[in-house]
Amino acid sequence: MNSWKDNIRKVVPYVPGEQPKVDDIIKLNTNENPYGPSDKVRSIRLDLDNLRKYPDPKSSLLVDKLAEYHKLKPEQVFVGVGSDDVISMCFLTFFNSDKPVFFPDITYSFYDVWADVYRIPYEKKPLDENFNIVKEDYKKENGGIIFPNPNAPTGKLVGLDFIEDIVKANPSSVVIIDEAYIDFGGETALPLIDKYENLLVVRTFSKSRSMAGLRIGYAMGNAELIKYLNDVKYSVNSYTMNTPSLVLGSAIIDDEDYFRESVGKIINTREKFTAELERLGFTVLPSKANFVFVSHKTVPATEIFEKMRENKIFFRHFNAPRIDNFLRITIGTDEEMERVIKVLETFCSATK
Amino acid sequence: MNSWKDNIRKVVPYVPGEQPKVDDIIKLNTNENPYGPSDKVRSIRLDLDNLRKYPDPKSSLLVDKLAEYHKLKPEQVFVGVGSDDVISMCFLTFFNSDKPVFFPDITYSFYDVWADVYRIPYEKKPLDENFNIVKEDYKKENGGIIFPNPNAPTGKLVGLDFIEDIVKANPSSVVIIDEAYIDFGGETALPLIDKYENLLVVRTFSKSRSMAGLRIGYAMGNAELIKYLNDVKYSVNSYTMNTPSLVLGSAIIDDEDYFRESVGKIINTREKFTAELERLGFTVLPSKANFVFVSHKTVPATEIFEKMRENKIFFRHFNAPRIDNFLRITIGTDEEMERVIKVLETFCSATK
Repeated sequence: MNSWKDNIRKVVPYVPGEQPKVDDIIKLNTNENPYGPSDKVRSIRLDLDNLRKYPDPKSSLLVDKLAEYHKLKPEQVFVGVGSDDVISMCFLTFFNSDKPVFFPDITYSFYDVWADVYRIPYEKKPLDENFNIVKEDYKKENGGIIFPNPNAPTGKLVGLDFIEDIVKANPSSVVIIDEAYIDFGGETALPLIDKYENLLVVRTFSKSRSMAGLRIGYAMGNAELIKYLNDVKYSVNSYTMNTPSLVLGSAIIDDEDYFRESVGKIINTREKFTAELERLGFTVLPSKANFVFVSHKTVPATEIFEKMRENKIFFRHFNAPRIDNFLRITIGTDEEMERVIKVLETFCSATK
Repeated sequence: MNSWKDNIRKVVPYVPGEQPKVDDIIKLNTNENPYGPSDKVRSIRLDLDNLRKYPDPKSSLLVDKLAEYHKLKPEQVFVGVGSDDVISMCFLTFFNSDKPVFFPDITYSFYDVWADVYRIPYEKKPLDENFNIVKEDYKKENGGIIFPNPNAPTGKLVGLDFIEDIVKANPSSVVIIDEAYIDFGGETALPLIDKYENLLVVRTFSKSRSMAGLRIGYAMGNAELIKYLNDVKYSVNSYTMNTPSLVLGSAIIDDEDYFRESVGKIINTREKFTAELERLGFTVLPSKANFVFVSHKTVPATEIFEKMRENKIFFRHFNAPRIDNFLRITIGTDEEMERVIKVLETFCSATK
């Protein structure tokens, strides 16, 4: 018998990191920033009466602010409800061919979900044995390219030459560099967008900008690329950014000193924490992100994961080939990471 | 030569109503509520420090509140970034067949845009000469059905029997009733969702709830329908609802008295305004929405539109077949509508 169920798009959704509803935990599983927004931003009182009106569909307050900050024209900036919304729109807009989209086998686990939901063919290109992206793999015919830099969950960075090589080799594809973690020690590909019209750089407010709860992401590229993206966005939802996002998001961009200070603290903590982990017998991939990706020489990742959970400390474990003995640990405050080391010390050691 | 432009999804986007950036205007072009949220909601002070954390991906605060309000289970409620986001997800999820989706020729002008962006075939079913939906048109083989009740921009309502007939005749399709304007005098189809598993009812916070600036919409249906919708949503963007939306959106649902009072005022104003328009020679379709759809016996719609604009009063005009001599006018406060009548009086009259 015919049923409405026959016409359903059936998918296997992305599973976000757990958001435990209990207090008094150390939450290092979703790469949030341990430092909240600055006092200046926190003191903003929103005009809630104004909520009766639609927000500006062009999000000009935020777009203009970002353009000014990055020394671009507003026509070169696209904003969305987190970089997930931005990248989802990019898949729908730019990866509209029968050729496969390329991305690494070990990377942000949402890429294949978007490809699946929009019925886009794709090929995962394996990282090498040291978890590096293999450049030559991205020089074959494709329908688009995307990878994060630094990559997630490895934290490993590639240089601008590496990116330029790939962009130059692919004039028939849009190449998207997902710079969610770039502020924690990487060099941005942004200077290349004036040179290559097929390059798009994506950022988020959820990590270095301490604003995961607002859901803001953005893309930067040449004006024509951004126009195509906006056309699709206006065909899906004209008003995506709500008024609190526009007001608070643009205010936080003015807070350059606070931003640099909190990012600097996280980088410092990451380096100290890495040294401590190595002392305890961990292999730590060199990270330029606000997390580290680690494996212990003797204690299995799942065992560490569970033991930490019992101690109310949450890491992220991916039950996936090649990385199932690794854990991704977000960098919190110094105090939080000292507590983590203290607990780890009770059952992990270099000499076992 | 091959170019990245070959792989672009090219679309003609929806054009939202103008959001003029000047003050001191009477804005009756996007069906916003003239009354802001209640004092109780406006006095809420958001915990901005908390923005560093991701929002609850399940939006439980808001979903549970809506479920309680409508006497449903939380599994029967889906929330999104405005009803546009909700309906967009519905098109992607439920209208996944080669058969055409049916909706009226004169209706919310986003429906065909969504169908186009997702490459869904569709057929527009003409309203009759009195702008009524023709029920029999919706009893042919189709890939899904959607219409607003009351319809937009006509404001005309159909009864529950009418809807039940269509839902019953289409067990192989999901039928979506877009109840954006139902609170202004209509009878909701909500009681039918327990009886028909293929029925989905969609609502928005942008009209009767005075919260257009927050971007909140929701859908209600049987738990299986909602689960499919959530699977697709989690495959597009796991965290769509930001923290301010969850906190303020759930608070406003508690404000039942204020809600009823402001909706009552708008209905009263609509009836008074309708009588005045008729006095001035307008044909006014019987409206159960927070707008009226009107045509003058002698003065062309575009002339009225321009004259009002010169007087800083914004109506909505649709340059579309059959309705290009009509204007959609949002119901504002009594004072605003009195001013509208005063200006209209200078060039519209029942005689000549």
